[in-house]
Amino acid sequence: MKPLDNLDQIRKNDNESWFHPWESMADVGAANRTVISRADGIYVYDETGRRLIDGPGGMWCMQIGYGRQEMADAISKQIMQVPYMNPFSLTSEPSARLAAKLAELAPGDLNHVFLTTGGSTAVDTALRFVQFYNNVKGRNNKKHIISRASAYHGSTYLCSLVTGKDRDKNWFDIGSPFVHFLPSVNPSRRPTGMTMQAFADEKAHDLEAKILELGPENVGVFIAEPIQSSGGVIVPPDGYLRKCWEICRKYDVLYISDEVVTGFGRLGHWFASKDVFGIEPDIIICAKGLTSGYLPLGACLISDRVFSEVSGNNARGATFGHGFTYSGHPVCSVAALKSIEIIERENLLEHVRDVGPYFQARLQELRDIPIVFDVRGMGLVGCVECTVKDIAKDSLAFDSNLGARIDQHCHELGLMLRPIVNQCVFSPPLIITEAEIDLMIEAMREGILRTMRDIEQELGILIG
Amino acid sequence: MKPLDNLDQIRKNDNESWFHPWESMADVGAANRTVISRADGIYVYDETGRRLIDGPGGMWCMQIGYGRQEMADAISKQIMQVPYMNPFSLTSEPSARLAAKLAELAPGDLNHVFLTTGGSTAVDTALRFVQFYNNVKGRNNKKHIISRASAYHGSTYLCSLVTGKDRDKNWFDIGSPFVHFLPSVNPSRRPTGMTMQAFADEKAHDLEAKILELGPENVGVFIAEPIQSSGGVIVPPDGYLRKCWEICRKYDVLYISDEVVTGFGRLGHWFASKDVFGIEPDIIICAKGLTSGYLPLGACLISDRVFSEVSGNNARGATFGHGFTYSGHPVCSVAALKSIEIIERENLLEHVRDVGPYFQARLQELRDIPIVFDVRGMGLVGCVECTVKDIAKDSLAFDSNLGARIDQHCHELGLMLRPIVNQCVFSPPLIITEAEIDLMIEAMREGILRTMRDIEQELGILIG
Repeated sequence: MKPLDNLDQIRKNDNESWFHPWESMADVGAANRTVISRADGIYVYDETGRRLIDGPGGMWCMQIGYGRQEMADAISKQIMQVPYMNPFSLTSEPSARLAAKLAELAPGDLNHVFLTTGGSTAVDTALRFVQFYNNVKGRNNKKHIISRASAYHGSTYLCSLVTGKDRDKNWFDIGSPFVHFLPSVNPSRRPTGMTMQAFADEKAHDLEAKILELGPENVGVFIAEPIQSSGGVIVPPDGYLRKCWEICRKYDVLYISDEVVTGFGRLGHWFASKDVFGIEPDIIICAKGLTSGYLPLGACLISDRVFSEVSGNNARGATFGHGFTYSGHPVCSVAALKSIEIIERENLLEHVRDVGPYFQARLQELRDIPIVFDVRGMGLVGCVECTVKDIAKDSLAFDSNLGARIDQHCHELGLMLRPIVNQCVFSPPLIITEAEIDLMIEAMREGILRTMRDIEQELGILIG
Repeated sequence: MKPLDNLDQIRKNDNESWFHPWESMADVGAANRTVISRADGIYVYDETGRRLIDGPGGMWCMQIGYGRQEMADAISKQIMQVPYMNPFSLTSEPSARLAAKLAELAPGDLNHVFLTTGGSTAVDTALRFVQFYNNVKGRNNKKHIISRASAYHGSTYLCSLVTGKDRDKNWFDIGSPFVHFLPSVNPSRRPTGMTMQAFADEKAHDLEAKILELGPENVGVFIAEPIQSSGGVIVPPDGYLRKCWEICRKYDVLYISDEVVTGFGRLGHWFASKDVFGIEPDIIICAKGLTSGYLPLGACLISDRVFSEVSGNNARGATFGHGFTYSGHPVCSVAALKSIEIIERENLLEHVRDVGPYFQARLQELRDIPIVFDVRGMGLVGCVECTVKDIAKDSLAFDSNLGARIDQHCHELGLMLRPIVNQCVFSPPLIITEAEIDLMIEAMREGILRTMRDIEQELGILIG
């Protein structure tokens, strides 16, 4: 591909005017971000025209791959037909059809679909719905929310309240007496010698103990990602989620499963809650893969059981006074329907169940590199965690940008990563083949090795 | 136009599966909403094929009108080029270009543009930024937020905290010790005999008194729509906003101007804050008209002055840990750029300044109808408020759905309204002509008269 001929102008605009998410305030104006100039299949192209495998799949969202002409056509057609209608009082075919389709794909009786503009607004909606639900039921004290360390649930104020990642909280005031965090469920951090089974039991016990400490009559909801994603692809121990779900049932605490990352094929199923983890949550959140990121959309799916307790004859005159101008946007709904159609037609769920184990096995091979500390994942999501803590005195300084350094080398090698501190996470487009997985792993290996050699030079030692 | 041949299926999907914004919980499953099946220019078509003037312009958002082929083409092209890129670490041409364009169009030095998915996420961002700003500056107590009765600022939890409309708060817990509401600024409700000037002074004094009561060192921000829109198109008295802005400056309180409705030509200017009301806010919020509703997008514009105090050498190592997967979505950015281009090329701002006074004058003519209580507006936004309080004993029961009843009649007459309790609000597409305004006003007059006659029959009296 050709390099961009107007790069200077784009950089100037970007540096001067666009205040980005998670912007480092010291670097404002000088970030010089990579410009994505084209995209096709599993590949994106940077400003120089270099082709890169899109390791993070956009940002955990690009399921069907880039460059889908039928997506462009469907969206274009909808724009000419009905580009907008007020969702408060009106409806349109694609929005209604999408709601019905999601109810059909979802496990159990999750048949009431509230459409939003992304994951954050869907989580915000779910948590507000729980509050509404308990108020309409006359249980005004049942308000406490239980979340977990390393959880990421989005970035409205309310979402950030239930997010357990400390560095996302710095410089904000987001403690709340109504929100509680359970300790990390990362199995690689469990005490030496503890079995996975014992760890699962202990972590589930943390939830029960917290409910009993607060009083079940005061606890409204438990919110959990099946796999903690931004938290570092933390796959919980076998049986843990099922135990948590049973505990919630036991104490009449609602269970929100945040499937923003795990939904829409990432683990080989439309939703992972039931098919992978054996639970039927009261509420499921989805976004990202819902439209393959082509347009913004999120959804909050609520069960018949819960919904019926506050609607119809149980409504007490209540109106759910919540929603967005762009709830159920008809054009975004078309994008979701088209992405789902492609996943169905191309059997991408089956494909992920096929190539997922291969991806995980190849990822595990990276463990033989000395600075690789942990490798984990499931389906088409993975994480390689590196550290120099056994090597360098000032290991924290190295570790804090190890991911970024590996990413830089990988970029040269034709692979884009998502670095998170000392971790590199992957969630490639679902269409990726075994041969392309090989390319990805080989670039990854070389990128880590080059980084290791740089550090060897800096420290004047030989690591491996 | 033909009626929809799959209406039953759409209705079934809609009734059973789509949980709508502001849904009345008693009516779930039986709402039978109007289905918008086509749209063109200032018109939408319902499920029977009936053509309706889109009085509310979608929901205060449809500036350029429906059916713009060049919009479909631009979006389609961007989808094939770069349909998504991660805004945390990457950039793309349309997103960067849009940020620069908004900085150019905005008044004063509002040069730092945070892009979101709509008005709510933009307000949430702005309020979180104020918190971040004061924390980085070491003023951790400067946290109180001052808003106003009847304000509407969106529907995340934090937005609802600062929304002053009571009925949007029912069944939620959204009091906060950090949020304070000033009394209504509706001039039509001012004490009999009070001049507008005296009213403006009194209302501005409310703000100053509240700041002094809380202590300026504890007040972070004042948030205000130039015209309260969902609150019933409340146009503040002359000079009031300017006084408020001066008071904010005096006490070092940030001023957020929520221009979600008033921006992008609704009042004949890109932004109303400076060009209409003579103020230069520290932060401006926009959404809706930003893309003409074709795709979801919002923005929060922050001034150089404020931004520089917490960035570069003043950053104290801070990262603004906030943002969305769909911040600066490249396809949505293209929609905004195209909408802005059309507004520029077709001189729609000038057009609104031309037809706005005609629209307002014709709207005022409706005052001669006995049940019309107040008519107000500015530019291409208007409100007709009706009441039977001087006529019926049980007037509240009538008034509570007067808007909906008028809307029903108008629907038969080819005009769609946005009813809010006893009010009918208008914000038609900016492309509307004087002849089309005539059609709108005549349908409106007839719709109100038919409603009045219904009520006469029900009460067995003659009103006018």
